Amino acid sequence: MTEPQIILGIDPGCTVTGYSILKKINQKISILDYGYLPLPAKKHLSIRIGIFYEFFIKKLDSFPEVTHIALETPFLHKNAQSFLKLGYLRGVLYLIANQRELGLFEFSPREVKLAVTGYGNASKEQVAKTLQLYFPNLTEQKKDDVTDAIAVSLCGAWSENAQG
Amino acid sequence: MTEPQIILGIDPGCTVTGYSILKKINQKISILDYGYLPLPAKKHLSIRIGIFYEFFIKKLDSFPEVTHIALETPFLHKNAQSFLKLGYLRGVLYLIANQRELGLFEFSPREVKLAVTGYGNASKEQVAKTLQLYFPNLTEQKKDDVTDAIAVSLCGAWSENAQG
Repeated sequence: MTEPQIILGIDPGCTVTGYSILKKINQKISILDYGYLPLPAKKHLSIRIGIFYEFFIKKLDSFPEVTHIALETPFLHKNAQSFLKLGYLRGVLYLIANQRELGLFEFSPREVKLAVTGYGNASKEQVAKTLQLYFPNLTEQKKDDVTDAIAVSLCGAWSENAQG
Repeated sequence: MTEPQIILGIDPGCTVTGYSILKKINQKISILDYGYLPLPAKKHLSIRIGIFYEFFIKKLDSFPEVTHIALETPFLHKNAQSFLKLGYLRGVLYLIANQRELGLFEFSPREVKLAVTGYGNASKEQVAKTLQLYFPNLTEQKKDDVTDAIAVSLCGAWSENAQG
């Protein structure tokens, strides 16, 4: 019997953040929680960041057995300011990982798609459909952010080596 | 007699972070503290971010009268990863501003240079020399990060309108 791993996968965003908590024990993976946190778009970033931090601190208080955080590595597309804001949220998650002594998994978007669907350029729909096969009780997600968080937490559950 | 403003200026960086604390009372500005925080370059970012957070939390415990944080707005130059890491540290500072209910000042590098030296394209040496005129007791700074932090805190002290 191996130690259970409980992975909190997060797809951070300044308006919507998806999250998912998966438990892996003896290679069996089950989903404990998933959903999303909306942030008030009109509030100053420092307020949104405060809400974001408190949300995940409370989530970890509710699931104190979480062992790892799993994130996608970010890429700069066109908008440098969006990229920077994503950095703000990721910085807060690094802080939480440090404060709660959690391991960190990071995967590129391609690694996540490849691991989940077997195809590195899979569409969001293909990822969502494949997740439905793994977790038949999953209700259909209206937010891509939730699907992305479940996918990255699943990569974490399959991974053998956490950093941090 | 106006309420004193105490401004913590920070020039964040993943290896060296400069800071400065200025007090403004009745238009008179004095410098209470300045220096820099080195971060262990070889440690995982989450560890560095934890040290960074704890350092400024303790600094604010030592100077509980701080009313504002002053920062330079970041610009993307060539290195997207450095820009993202700067975002991590800024996110943590936004969190601290929210947790401690501090106002936030943000100035572009050009605004800082213009305010301090009267010239928006001033060199780092020009900024340092001008600061020496304002604060004759300032020992010469070996780190640009400290000079930059003092400059941005001075902009904060001169500013009338804080956000956040």
